[in-house]
Amino acid sequence: MNFASDNIMGASEPVLRALVEANAGPLPAYGDDPLTQEIEARLGAIFEREVAVFLCATGTGANALALSALVPPWGLCVCHREAHVIDDECGAPEFFMHAAKLAGLPGTGAKLAPETLESWLAGLSSSVKQMPPKALSLSQLTECGTAYGRDEIAALSAIAHRNGMKVHMDGARFANALESLGCTPAQMTWQAGIDVLTFGATKNGCLAAEAIIFFNPQDAKAMPWLRKRGGHTLSKGRLLAAQFKGYLDDDHWRDNARHANAMAARLADGLTGQGLRLAWQRAGNEVFVVMKQAQAEALRGQGCAFHPWTATNLAPDDALGPDEGIYRLVTSFATQEAMVDRFLTLVDRTM
Amino acid sequence: MNFASDNIMGASEPVLRALVEANAGPLPAYGDDPLTQEIEARLGAIFEREVAVFLCATGTGANALALSALVPPWGLCVCHREAHVIDDECGAPEFFMHAAKLAGLPGTGAKLAPETLESWLAGLSSSVKQMPPKALSLSQLTECGTAYGRDEIAALSAIAHRNGMKVHMDGARFANALESLGCTPAQMTWQAGIDVLTFGATKNGCLAAEAIIFFNPQDAKAMPWLRKRGGHTLSKGRLLAAQFKGYLDDDHWRDNARHANAMAARLADGLTGQGLRLAWQRAGNEVFVVMKQAQAEALRGQGCAFHPWTATNLAPDDALGPDEGIYRLVTSFATQEAMVDRFLTLVDRTM
Amino acid sequence: MNFASDNIMGASEPVLRALVEANAGPLPAYGDDPLTQEIEARLGAIFEREVAVFLCATGTGANALALSALVPPWGLCVCHREAHVIDDECGAPEFFMHAAKLAGLPGTGAKLAPETLESWLAGLSSSVKQMPPKALSLSQLTECGTAYGRDEIAALSAIAHRNGMKVHMDGARFANALESLGCTPAQMTWQAGIDVLTFGATKNGCLAAEAIIFFNPQDAKAMPWLRKRGGHTLSKGRLLAAQFKGYLDDDHWRDNARHANAMAARLADGLTGQGLRLAWQRAGNEVFVVMKQAQAEALRGQGCAFHPWTATNLAPDDALGPDEGIYRLVTSFATQEAMVDRFLTLVDRTM
Amino acid sequence: MNFASDNIMGASEPVLRALVEANAGPLPAYGDDPLTQEIEARLGAIFEREVAVFLCATGTGANALALSALVPPWGLCVCHREAHVIDDECGAPEFFMHAAKLAGLPGTGAKLAPETLESWLAGLSSSVKQMPPKALSLSQLTECGTAYGRDEIAALSAIAHRNGMKVHMDGARFANALESLGCTPAQMTWQAGIDVLTFGATKNGCLAAEAIIFFNPQDAKAMPWLRKRGGHTLSKGRLLAAQFKGYLDDDHWRDNARHANAMAARLADGLTGQGLRLAWQRAGNEVFVVMKQAQAEALRGQGCAFHPWTATNLAPDDALGPDEGIYRLVTSFATQEAMVDRFLTLVDRTM
Repeated sequence: MNFASDNIMGASEPVLRALVEANAGPLPAYGDDPLTQEIEARLGAIFEREVAVFLCATGTGANALALSALVPPWGLCVCHREAHVIDDECGAPEFFMHAAKLAGLPGTGAKLAPETLESWLAGLSSSVKQMPPKALSLSQLTECGTAYGRDEIAALSAIAHRNGMKVHMDGARFANALESLGCTPAQMTWQAGIDVLTFGATKNGCLAAEAIIFFNPQDAKAMPWLRKRGGHTLSKGRLLAAQFKGYLDDDHWRDNARHANAMAARLADGLTGQGLRLAWQRAGNEVFVVMKQAQAEALRGQGCAFHPWTATNLAPDDALGPDEGIYRLVTSFATQEAMVDRFLTLVDRTM
Repeated sequence: MNFASDNIMGASEPVLRALVEANAGPLPAYGDDPLTQEIEARLGAIFEREVAVFLCATGTGANALALSALVPPWGLCVCHREAHVIDDECGAPEFFMHAAKLAGLPGTGAKLAPETLESWLAGLSSSVKQMPPKALSLSQLTECGTAYGRDEIAALSAIAHRNGMKVHMDGARFANALESLGCTPAQMTWQAGIDVLTFGATKNGCLAAEAIIFFNPQDAKAMPWLRKRGGHTLSKGRLLAAQFKGYLDDDHWRDNARHANAMAARLADGLTGQGLRLAWQRAGNEVFVVMKQAQAEALRGQGCAFHPWTATNLAPDDALGPDEGIYRLVTSFATQEAMVDRFLTLVDRTM
Repeated sequence: MNFASDNIMGASEPVLRALVEANAGPLPAYGDDPLTQEIEARLGAIFEREVAVFLCATGTGANALALSALVPPWGLCVCHREAHVIDDECGAPEFFMHAAKLAGLPGTGAKLAPETLESWLAGLSSSVKQMPPKALSLSQLTECGTAYGRDEIAALSAIAHRNGMKVHMDGARFANALESLGCTPAQMTWQAGIDVLTFGATKNGCLAAEAIIFFNPQDAKAMPWLRKRGGHTLSKGRLLAAQFKGYLDDDHWRDNARHANAMAARLADGLTGQGLRLAWQRAGNEVFVVMKQAQAEALRGQGCAFHPWTATNLAPDDALGPDEGIYRLVTSFATQEAMVDRFLTLVDRTM
Repeated sequence: MNFASDNIMGASEPVLRALVEANAGPLPAYGDDPLTQEIEARLGAIFEREVAVFLCATGTGANALALSALVPPWGLCVCHREAHVIDDECGAPEFFMHAAKLAGLPGTGAKLAPETLESWLAGLSSSVKQMPPKALSLSQLTECGTAYGRDEIAALSAIAHRNGMKVHMDGARFANALESLGCTPAQMTWQAGIDVLTFGATKNGCLAAEAIIFFNPQDAKAMPWLRKRGGHTLSKGRLLAAQFKGYLDDDHWRDNARHANAMAARLADGLTGQGLRLAWQRAGNEVFVVMKQAQAEALRGQGCAFHPWTATNLAPDDALGPDEGIYRLVTSFATQEAMVDRFLTLVDRTM
């Protein structure tokens, strides 16, 4: 019963098969191969727009590269104060942005509110002491497993654009968010104002495959060199392209996300049915449940794996009791109904 | 008849098989899995020493990270003036070394001579205007397909160490060089003074797998953070470890290199037997042959793929004739004898 | 009646005279001159310890260089969340630290409490996602004009050292703080655990002169190159050394600070005597007074210059009324008693 | 008889006087003062064009900042292989350009020939391995004391512009070069294609004053932040502006350069009249004379100060004899005729 993360499994079967199939025969190196070009075109079709696509092996690399294309070394990138880019990437964005700075703003459920962004920008000094804001980065899903609605993305993007900033979406769990919103990829991104997307595939069925997607190709002019000097241009480009082929063919990516979300819903429903409460509203494949610490310990003792979480983004009314904690449960394409039910049974015994 | 590079093929069969086998089941993320630990231990056994190992997906990333662990932002890294790190990595080493500088010295066959290094170091100003030399990077094989002998490595390393510098080996074609020298991995590296090795596997049978190997683990203290903030820590670490398992098991890596070298020897012998000359002495799986430009064109017209090369590292006596060029032919684990022979037959017709 | 800042005046008379006197005759360039060496020795005597000294023209440059000697590119520097280094230097520290990060913690009056630092450090993840803390930077005076007591500095430094961190003091207003505490330079710095000091002189009577003082010279090994590549090594080093000669001779620096502090005390006493309250306790040459916004406007209309300030560092009990604001009044060596009294008279009329 | 450099003297008398005069009274900080604005306007008038001006205290800082405004982190800056920016600034340009690279090309007398630049650019790979050239930096005077003619500057600039590169002039000895060419500042810069100039004043009579002058103000958009985060924005801006006032008033700068050049001419004429030869043609205030090493030693023993120089930029016909060396003699505004003549007398005795 491992709910520790969605990166603990290998590739899903169609992705692995595509990788094996693409292995044979010579292909041009460094991404100049027809398979990579096919994937780039396919992503354009999925997003219903001309795009510039850069494949990459890690989410941290993809986020850092995307931001480095938007933010000059003397600029600011605004994000939630507990966003993955500011908190969990060991300074990769700052390194790739050449010491440009991330400015973290507060917000319940790890979501930025438009009014928070607006008033923070209004309060910035125009002095040269102040690095000017050049980008906004939104995580979809957020670190608390919540999702921005299309209107929220549009409102935040509009504020950013009015202030001369570009907008990045960290879509490490893009597919899960998309299934949650029930809209098209275009609607959740460029039609709501997103300029650049980190389209994550690793967590949702690949082994190591992310796509940086620029909706305005002119923003990507520096990207070939930025990626190469970051060491992120694979010589055997087929490794990335093949994973994407298996991932995108037959809407496999949507199926994987739908399954993971369904498993999370089953978990959430089961837990709340037992009288537990969620710290934040579940949107995709992550459930943040409030439990007694002793209860969590008991479950771990019985072989359940999951991580504790900090309570910093709770709404004021949701404060924890003295012996309560927040625990994150993550499902994936590989989570089985039986595993969820077994876990719920164990929880039931600890109530 | 594709001799363009050794990165045009996918994985060799045992590597691919290992990848498939390692796919099933949950494993801890970020390299904290038993498979990665097994590989790290295995490399220690191969090199007969306690080592600190960091797996990585690209050679450019591995070189840049290794150098960034050795050279402070205000230091110099000395290398041959046409080394891969200075000429073919789009500034990745400088980026990862935080603007530390690569200083390129001349040398026939892309090899640094000990006396060249010695006298260059002696001529450096002690003024603060001068960035101090902190590392030496040697390529084994070199960009001209030549190999340093053990004595040469030892002589160069000794000079570097006497001058307070660490020594890095860019072993993108480590296995080919090792087969050429006929010595042990330990003898070609730390026993000859190498402090850090980029142990390349991608070109010799993997898809994307390199290992940065520190022979003095204390040199690697910063590496976990350097790798993570470079975006080079894979969340599903098994992707890298599994490739290495297939690569190292049953000495598969030695077999691959032996085969590639044998194919290159067959090529070189065939070409010199036809009266052509080599620009530099072949050591591993690269043959640099001097041909008439028209001859090269004719071969290309018949479906042969290979790259022209610059003549800057020729010995003075080897100058090209006016209509001659240098052409690089690279073999790999996948090169077949029949392909070599077919190519030689075509060459014969153009003589 | 200009209380805008202590950087609006030129040099005090002895400093200017020393500059003129040092102008004649040839001297070795780049700080290898006897005058610079004299200053370095003099600072050692003042701090009662062997020190490594690096003169520099700007406070931002001095802070950024000092921190870059302490923090590796993958490390954290902890400071108050409104410290000058994090808020007012346009990212200079991050640039010089090669994208290392500043982590800002809260604290009333812009002071870090030892328990805040302790518990924040205890809560850090040991994962590689987390940049490790490598330095603590304290501002003395703080951004709110308060001063750390010697015990507070010692307590904070002890926590930092126990956690493997070095401690930097941003002493842009070092002399004012020293007069406030009434202790020796040694007591306020290395005897309380400070490793590196930015010894500011510009605000207190020089034109452009700061000294970076390392109390453990081995921490400064990289400094000659760090300073040079930052463009902060003046070719005519006498410009900096001569200012320091005028500044240090006959305890001129102490006199200047004593005067500025006395003027600020006169201001503060006058204002509180009129029934106004201070936002934070005055320690040196800065007074933060709470006034009605209309009152501040009226004073400005009569030719008084001073800046508004944010209320983020107020103690909970000190919250502002709806039409109140905080205003900063800064005195300097050049502030005259009559000017203070004239201002107080004007204030009196607005009450 | 000190000919070691033109940075061994303090300020010339009018510069020092201007500094003293500008010291009194309050002025806005950070360069927002009327004196700084006056200098910026004055430089526009001198260059007969709208310019964007950024004052700075050091030549290394000015060069590095200027280049950082032209070259993205993934670009190349081309210069002569012994230019000051590549050889004598401890990597400052690379640091400020965020690890962008300097590419050094050969050329007699430290001058780049247009055909050298043209053919080097033509030979660059279009692959992503190759950082693209984004700027050309020319030194006027060069490191060998030679000067580019207006036609040469125009030819080099035209090649650069055709290749999408901007052109920077390192004018550490701008005034000396200008007097040598006998043209207007406009003719030697933007009318010949220069985009950005480091207008040096320190060596020619100031203490620490350089101006970065952008002839296309839109190239300077990032400069306010780049300068601030480099620690190069002085809080008491009058220090720089006042020096420039003394320097520019009454054409003092032209007088200083004319005098230094005349002293160098006197030196060069005297030396060649004694049968010695110059390594490179003198253009401004630097004389590179070929002498027997024993002769140089003898002169040093009699109290003459000057530096030896490397022979790497000699024309093929000018090779040194076995016991010969090149010695650099630098004159300045402060060099006196009597000192030159005394030196020549000493030389005469060693012949």
